[in-house]
Amino acid sequence: MPQRTMQEFREERLEGQERVLALDHLGIKRFFALDTAAYRDGDLPARTKELCGLAASMVLRCNDCIDYHIEQCVKHDWTKEEIVEAFNVALIVGGSIVIPHLRHATATLEQLLAEQPEE
Amino acid sequence: MPQRTMQEFREERLEGQERVLALDHLGIKRFFALDTAAYRDGDLPARTKELCGLAASMVLRCNDCIDYHIEQCVKHDWTKEEIVEAFNVALIVGGSIVIPHLRHATATLEQLLAEQPEE
Amino acid sequence: MPQRTMQEFREERLEGQERVLALDHLGIKRFFALDTAAYRDGDLPARTKELCGLAASMVLRCNDCIDYHIEQCVKHDWTKEEIVEAFNVALIVGGSIVIPHLRHATATLEQLLAEQPEE
Amino acid sequence: MPQRTMQEFREERLEGQERVLALDHLGIKRFFALDTAAYRDGDLPARTKELCGLAASMVLRCNDCIDYHIEQCVKHDWTKEEIVEAFNVALIVGGSIVIPHLRHATATLEQLLAEQPEE
Amino acid sequence: MPQRTMQEFREERLEGQERVLALDHLGIKRFFALDTAAYRDGDLPARTKELCGLAASMVLRCNDCIDYHIEQCVKHDWTKEEIVEAFNVALIVGGSIVIPHLRHATATLEQLLAEQPEE
Amino acid sequence: MPQRTMQEFREERLEGQERVLALDHLGIKRFFALDTAAYRDGDLPARTKELCGLAASMVLRCNDCIDYHIEQCVKHDWTKEEIVEAFNVALIVGGSIVIPHLRHATATLEQLLAEQPEE
Repeated sequence: MPQRTMQEFREERLEGQERVLALDHLGIKRFFALDTAAYRDGDLPARTKELCGLAASMVLRCNDCIDYHIEQCVKHDWTKEEIVEAFNVALIVGGSIVIPHLRHATATLEQLLAEQPEE
Repeated sequence: MPQRTMQEFREERLEGQERVLALDHLGIKRFFALDTAAYRDGDLPARTKELCGLAASMVLRCNDCIDYHIEQCVKHDWTKEEIVEAFNVALIVGGSIVIPHLRHATATLEQLLAEQPEE
Repeated sequence: MPQRTMQEFREERLEGQERVLALDHLGIKRFFALDTAAYRDGDLPARTKELCGLAASMVLRCNDCIDYHIEQCVKHDWTKEEIVEAFNVALIVGGSIVIPHLRHATATLEQLLAEQPEE
Repeated sequence: MPQRTMQEFREERLEGQERVLALDHLGIKRFFALDTAAYRDGDLPARTKELCGLAASMVLRCNDCIDYHIEQCVKHDWTKEEIVEAFNVALIVGGSIVIPHLRHATATLEQLLAEQPEE
Repeated sequence: MPQRTMQEFREERLEGQERVLALDHLGIKRFFALDTAAYRDGDLPARTKELCGLAASMVLRCNDCIDYHIEQCVKHDWTKEEIVEAFNVALIVGGSIVIPHLRHATATLEQLLAEQPEE
Repeated sequence: MPQRTMQEFREERLEGQERVLALDHLGIKRFFALDTAAYRDGDLPARTKELCGLAASMVLRCNDCIDYHIEQCVKHDWTKEEIVEAFNVALIVGGSIVIPHLRHATATLEQLLAEQPEE
């Protein structure tokens, strides 16, 4: 059973987000807005926050969150080597229980880099 | 890859429970009995306990447990709006790492409500 | 080393909340407002949400959060027996690793009930 | 959706490990070596460490880690009954949130025992 | 602030257990009985189960549970070197976030060994 | 009960680290070396890794780890405002259960900034 493609993930995630927002619960909608805002440029640039978000997602072991933040990190021009350094910090903090997620994250990173246009 | 249907979940869960009980381990069987008993009417009604079980399952981020408790909550006549309020408490307690499970829970809730007979 | 009193907890918590808010970070202040709003009367009454918050706090094993929600539950007139039922749900969901927090929660509950005026 | 077979798991895991090691990050490679070394015979025999690793994996609720350690436990000649005792310790420590993983672990254990040659 | 002594821990724990049992909740009392039973000699000897319980407690990062299981492991004649091997498995599984608990566990182990009669 | 001072934390931590290393377990010593190495300048600068380590420690809710990484972040010249942005990312990822640790982290940050020489 090969890992879902990033395109499948994006579509499922988008559909899921829309389903949640359609619940039309004010608290949930505000939380979603806060979540988006947390990663905008501020006293820290967005790209640094995305790397922190990636490390946090890995130690909490959530593949959807990991995939989302890797995609954002690639968009913000972190290189493969830099992202792998963040993987390593998360592995050391979180231990071997993180390894299955590291396997997932590595496959995601390679998919995303393969999607990038040649320079 | 669409989410499993609730019917698939029920069958897989039932088969899995039977496989575990067939191990015939006294401690495990007693724990299963205690687990069932914990949600029976007592000083708190069963329906209130199921809502607490749902909130606990969401912050611990276990989709099988979430699906089971949403189904129980629907059976105990909590309305969609009330269940969504419990989702919101879990989201605020547990943070954005809960969001993938909130997406799952929302799809489950909608499936279960669609199964309900028209009144 | 006896457990801190609820009065000590209230003062330390209040001082800590003020210190955090004094950081004057918009995202943090908005999250605090959302957190407060999540437990207000809505489609579910505040008292039901507080009981869900208590169960969630116990399985996540956070004594400060447990103490806060027990106090709210007592204020919302949940009886000792009802709160203990929520303890039991959390114990069954979270297992023996919850027991040290159950010991803490029990001492907190007894302190709070002893503070209540005679009726 | 039946559970993946152990053969599928072994192949996916191996491919994933190779992909991670191909990142060629010194810290990650050293952690992998330390992880392997942690389960070698030492002051505790490897088989006792594998049983501890299984209990730890179950309470942390990671199916990949659970499958890996059950396979090692079977290779180290722990009997079905002994492994189920470790399942029970993990269930009691970790609570009902472990049950979906116990269902998975039971199916894995049965697959592995069915693969064993008749004696 | 030096770490509490094991004698203080034992007294606080005993007092806390009695307070919980005095709540007289049938589900809680049954869970406590199941918890005790889980570590009795069975298909696995009690001492092996205690070592598994220690590893599980360390990765879940609960100092009270860690102290309790180290004490049981010492009573069951696991040597210092063997217990330290279990510490290492937990450290590798759980990562650097376990280190503060490893510091605590080491101090506990040394206290307990110092209490042992000379042979 | 006021929060321990950073000076007390540093001394207790140092003493604890020495006690663990004195166990003289090769695996543990190697893990400690890997942990130190993970935060050295590499493809990512040490200061970025420390910020990621802080975010990971906050969502995993470990005060000792939080204090250690805040101290490193201050040493690496992250400003108060930048560190608070990392607090906010962790709060959003981890939810209200992180708040008690945010109160702790804020007090630590203020102590550390008060220790800094005037410029």
